[in-house]
Amino acid sequence: MSDIRALFFDVFGTLVDWRGSIAREVRRLGLSVDGEAFADAWRNEYQPAMERIRAGGRGYVKLDVLHRENLDRILPRFGLESMSEAEREALNLVWHRLDAWPDVVEGLKQLRKQFLLAPMSNGNIALMADMARHNGFHWDAILGSEIARDYKPKPEVYLAGCAAFDLAPEACMMVAAHSSDLAAAAACGLKTAHIARPDEHGPGKGETAPDVPVDHAARDLLHLAEHLSA
Amino acid sequence: MSDIRALFFDVFGTLVDWRGSIAREVRRLGLSVDGEAFADAWRNEYQPAMERIRAGGRGYVKLDVLHRENLDRILPRFGLESMSEAEREALNLVWHRLDAWPDVVEGLKQLRKQFLLAPMSNGNIALMADMARHNGFHWDAILGSEIARDYKPKPEVYLAGCAAFDLAPEACMMVAAHSSDLAAAAACGLKTAHIARPDEHGPGKGETAPDVPVDHAARDLLHLAEHLSA
Repeated sequence: MSDIRALFFDVFGTLVDWRGSIAREVRRLGLSVDGEAFADAWRNEYQPAMERIRAGGRGYVKLDVLHRENLDRILPRFGLESMSEAEREALNLVWHRLDAWPDVVEGLKQLRKQFLLAPMSNGNIALMADMARHNGFHWDAILGSEIARDYKPKPEVYLAGCAAFDLAPEACMMVAAHSSDLAAAAACGLKTAHIARPDEHGPGKGETAPDVPVDHAARDLLHLAEHLSA
Repeated sequence: MSDIRALFFDVFGTLVDWRGSIAREVRRLGLSVDGEAFADAWRNEYQPAMERIRAGGRGYVKLDVLHRENLDRILPRFGLESMSEAEREALNLVWHRLDAWPDVVEGLKQLRKQFLLAPMSNGNIALMADMARHNGFHWDAILGSEIARDYKPKPEVYLAGCAAFDLAPEACMMVAAHSSDLAAAAACGLKTAHIARPDEHGPGKGETAPDVPVDHAARDLLHLAEHLSA
């Protein structure tokens, strides 16, 4: 593993708790809905919205735009169709300030001593920059969907990240809590590390282990740092 | 100025001393040439190389590629045409580890408390990421030529940076030691700040003051931080 130069991170679910963060925001706003159900409904629109772009049926638009369209789509289901334009805009930015899982800030700090670090997320640059400020992440660059103008798991997204750092895919490692993301990265030649996030979709509803072959499987980022410095 | 959200920085000359750094590297390598003359010759090829791309006569290639072509062009003039391929590759990376002017690390740290910070350079992402590691810069994102796939002072480059941060041009300020860069940014609607670098091209050979209208003219980044927090 001594030839690994850069680590690329999935963000939603792997580094930050999107479900808990959105549920907390919904409660903070005093909306009379089940926060977790609202978070799940919003997130459920995520893959279909990206799929149109991946399939070529729509040109690239930033994830902020898709999140906003998806919000408009789910509000009536929760009896919130009267929410104002300004409130919708503000609520949409909750994705910019999702909270990190407890191991992440210290884990990234340790990994940064050995590797270049970049998000390899479907989130856009402004979203990633705001989230880094919110949590205190220090990225070397923001790579991912906006650089490639396409969405994971399209190979172009991973390969655009490697190219931006002038690295061969095998010198880069994709770190994610989702086996599908790791399988796609591995198919491009990247090394892979799985992070267990057993509660991503609610208590006990997340990947505790990869269901595809990976180079490392770790409990959290601190555990991964141990693996990679060994 | 309270509506400024992001600062964009020119890098070569404004943040780092390319001439002194390259001259030191040349001396460190024991090359029997005048280090400053070598640095000047290399840098003199910079604008013509980019101009072909800006004018549309060549597709976008990264600055690392142009630097390498320019190196090959000047080596014979210094009697160094026998330099090996590996030595040329290694020397070309000197641009990734240029040293910052003395005020820059502390200046960026202060400015970072108030603003999003990004390089708005013609340097490519890997070059900017390595240089940030070398000097201890903390960027929120690496914007600039590689994002826009074109070279300053083309308006597309500045505007792509604003768009990446989801900001209107008037919420962004371009910071540079070169009036031409600031004039181009201002024409796109960005605010502007000039930094004096009187020795960029050698003792007494640099812009001490802007020769175009700017919003701020500062002695260095610490002085700019004072201006902007006032």
